[in-house]
Amino acid sequence: MEKVLIKENERIDDLQRNHYKIIQDPDKFCFGMDAVLLSGFARAKEGDRVLDLGTGTGIIPILLEAKTKAAKLVGLEIQSESADMAARSVKLNGLEDKIEIVTGDVKEAVSLFGAASFHVVTCNPPYMTEHHGLTNPEAPKAIARHELLCTLEDVISQSSRLLKPGGNFYIVHRPFRLADIIVLLRQYKLEPKRMKLVYPFVDKEPNMVLIEANRGGKARITVEKPLIVYKEPNVYTDEIYNIYGY
Amino acid sequence: MEKVLIKENERIDDLQRNHYKIIQDPDKFCFGMDAVLLSGFARAKEGDRVLDLGTGTGIIPILLEAKTKAAKLVGLEIQSESADMAARSVKLNGLEDKIEIVTGDVKEAVSLFGAASFHVVTCNPPYMTEHHGLTNPEAPKAIARHELLCTLEDVISQSSRLLKPGGNFYIVHRPFRLADIIVLLRQYKLEPKRMKLVYPFVDKEPNMVLIEANRGGKARITVEKPLIVYKEPNVYTDEIYNIYGY
Repeated sequence: MEKVLIKENERIDDLQRNHYKIIQDPDKFCFGMDAVLLSGFARAKEGDRVLDLGTGTGIIPILLEAKTKAAKLVGLEIQSESADMAARSVKLNGLEDKIEIVTGDVKEAVSLFGAASFHVVTCNPPYMTEHHGLTNPEAPKAIARHELLCTLEDVISQSSRLLKPGGNFYIVHRPFRLADIIVLLRQYKLEPKRMKLVYPFVDKEPNMVLIEANRGGKARITVEKPLIVYKEPNVYTDEIYNIYGY
Repeated sequence: MEKVLIKENERIDDLQRNHYKIIQDPDKFCFGMDAVLLSGFARAKEGDRVLDLGTGTGIIPILLEAKTKAAKLVGLEIQSESADMAARSVKLNGLEDKIEIVTGDVKEAVSLFGAASFHVVTCNPPYMTEHHGLTNPEAPKAIARHELLCTLEDVISQSSRLLKPGGNFYIVHRPFRLADIIVLLRQYKLEPKRMKLVYPFVDKEPNMVLIEANRGGKARITVEKPLIVYKEPNVYTDEIYNIYGY
């Protein structure tokens, strides 16, 4: 395996999958449980072409490479420093033949890759719509968390055009946007087909929602059994350990 | 209390609330847990006017009378035998001043009651869209369970017009219609604001969804903690005992 440059402040974390590792910079942005859960929820078939919009550290393509038989995975990231870090993680794992990191704007994704060019599109988008009062709207964390450079509608409208007919779109988001997500998916011909709510504890409100939508699919959604994260404080449930691969 | 006529095959059940009782005919249609959960999920303020669309046995207005300080509750039912039975239940409980049962069509509700005439509208609609193969589409059970006489869109479009600005709509349905429900609510200016999924067991798919939508409300939904029905086979969770009032 080639030698890969690690910059100051960066660290290498073990992903517990295929001995894959990932480079992260805690001062900028580290991947969260949402990305891991989305990669556990998403499905890709043998030979599929997969695109991850706003890939950040590249966590989703790297985990999906480990979990599926997809032929090719592309991660699109607008922040060049993040894209560079993701590309070095790909190299670190020797996955340059399978995963490509592209620096670019989600809003330009159809121009970059062409319409109907993927079987699967995934996205762990910025969650926050409000951004007044942000002290540093150009900071990497702000861009990853707030709808500064692209909106939910940008993500969904581009994904609809990027997908082949019958292809699947996967998104993780906060439950407070559920109505917006479903309305936009239907509007852009991505029919919601599977949904899973993630509850931190069995007696608490969910803090994440995972949705699969099918390009041109028929109206009928399956809501899956709940995903409960903790069985007691600081102790994950077996399902979470499974998804994390421990 | 006046003497109330009970017909052949009918029985009287105790509702465990205010000593209220209800008349049901097991050969036609008995209320289910969905109606009870909807009445536990719905909210009405003191003095509110409440309408229940497709009231069947009248279970929802009777339970809401017990649980809230609503001034007036109306139950609309197209099947005259059910409406007659519901009206006799109202009489049996001495609630004629508070609850009115009207025989009529949900599709005509705005003409019957006038636009913007209620603070709260509830509905436990027929769940099934498919109705080919129904051997007896005029049977009371078939009408209560299948979209034979009114569709989800009829219910939502009428409810939107029946509600005062800021009024709330409450519906219980099967989760497989979730995308349809949310899209129709948004389309008719009933913004989904609260949602609760009902899971029979903690490790099973939900079999009911409860939704509150606000007439003219702002986009933001709260998904509530899960409602789990059984803690083990045949043993209800405390939350269910609470809602049932035991």
